[in-house]
Amino acid sequence: MSDQAKKPSLYTSLSPALLNLYDISSSIVVIIDVLRATSTISTALYNGAKEIIPVDSVDECIRIGKQMSAITAGERDGKVAEGLQYGNSPFEYPQSFIEGKTLVLTTTNGTKLLHMALSNGAKEIITGAFSNLDVVCDYLLQQNKNILLACSAWKDKINIEDTLFAGAVIDKIQNAFSIQCDASKIALGLYQEAAPDLFEFMKLKQASHYLRLTSFGIEKDIQHCLMYNTAPVLPFYKDGKLIAAKV
Amino acid sequence: MSDQAKKPSLYTSLSPALLNLYDISSSIVVIIDVLRATSTISTALYNGAKEIIPVDSVDECIRIGKQMSAITAGERDGKVAEGLQYGNSPFEYPQSFIEGKTLVLTTTNGTKLLHMALSNGAKEIITGAFSNLDVVCDYLLQQNKNILLACSAWKDKINIEDTLFAGAVIDKIQNAFSIQCDASKIALGLYQEAAPDLFEFMKLKQASHYLRLTSFGIEKDIQHCLMYNTAPVLPFYKDGKLIAAKV
Repeated sequence: MSDQAKKPSLYTSLSPALLNLYDISSSIVVIIDVLRATSTISTALYNGAKEIIPVDSVDECIRIGKQMSAITAGERDGKVAEGLQYGNSPFEYPQSFIEGKTLVLTTTNGTKLLHMALSNGAKEIITGAFSNLDVVCDYLLQQNKNILLACSAWKDKINIEDTLFAGAVIDKIQNAFSIQCDASKIALGLYQEAAPDLFEFMKLKQASHYLRLTSFGIEKDIQHCLMYNTAPVLPFYKDGKLIAAKV
Repeated sequence: MSDQAKKPSLYTSLSPALLNLYDISSSIVVIIDVLRATSTISTALYNGAKEIIPVDSVDECIRIGKQMSAITAGERDGKVAEGLQYGNSPFEYPQSFIEGKTLVLTTTNGTKLLHMALSNGAKEIITGAFSNLDVVCDYLLQQNKNILLACSAWKDKINIEDTLFAGAVIDKIQNAFSIQCDASKIALGLYQEAAPDLFEFMKLKQASHYLRLTSFGIEKDIQHCLMYNTAPVLPFYKDGKLIAAKV
């Protein structure tokens, strides 16, 4: 117990509606939106995007995009939002397209949660997805600070994929943290059940966002977003922008 | 899919803070507070309590208790609340004591959630715990209506034991319902992992409320509350009271 007490804490918020239960001002907040915002963020940064500006409305996305002559991208309800140029698929941001460019991004859940975390006093925000799992875990271990894993969910309803990613992080770093949080333990158990094949697990469970996205014919996005370490970079929020941190 | 569409829906709310995401006015709402409110409710009714009046504050508990010359009971933070006669342990309500009596009960999470469900428009409320699992499941199958499994959690933080009970219900009745709800699927997986020995699972996971209650020396309460069908009765909310429904 005394050994536990010396370790920094780790909590998991499974929905934005639960975020206010946690003390986020003294924690590194990991924003998680596996399908697809935080997968796309790490992919675009890994492929050389200069920066990503997360905004919480389509109007602001258009306004800032014009002002900065930047690429505007985002989705609402899983589809490219009206008035924006690009969507929320990692496949839209290969190096040949995105290198050196600024992306202004708005999504249904992920970018909203990031702004909510800011309003709630978060001082250090990074984003995580399976695409950058190891980099995120290495960083968290190295920092040795309190952590809040913040799942974006779907319109506040808990989802399987973000819970799985929280579980994957916990699986890797649990020994270095004090975890007095049932949600974290539930996430870990879910991940350990799913680990042998994340995509098959999502399919088998008929996860709600799996069904939503496959109904749009983008099963390949799901497969890609569930692959490990395809975009090993650390998206770090600073001065209104996500940039690839040097780690 | 068309077969699914004909079935009534089942959703799980893992925290009172998520309750407003669900349409509860057209569902049977099952209030779940395994440690210990809904275990104690079914136990007291099974042992012959005339009725249980759930109230959401200690002051109201005292006021109604006096007015009705009823037993006042309840806890705050896991301990008997100041000014009340009895606590929230099923062992306090044997037949020799409770038969024919009225109990006014207030608890940190369970009775609060029941009142929240009422405010949100619930029209049919029952309570569930492992102590009356089979009776609850039989009733839900027989009614063939939409269901919301509503976990009381701990001060809005998701807990393992209520999630486990939601999973146990789903495990028994899932074929009769359409379940487009990731939280339900997470609960089911958790239960299936824990089913061989619920108490060992809670201990192994160092569930937060397991630690809280064992620190008060009431491990036997936890063991009892995780036993199946010790109080096979259906607590049904009607006109401000929980009574044992004829099933």
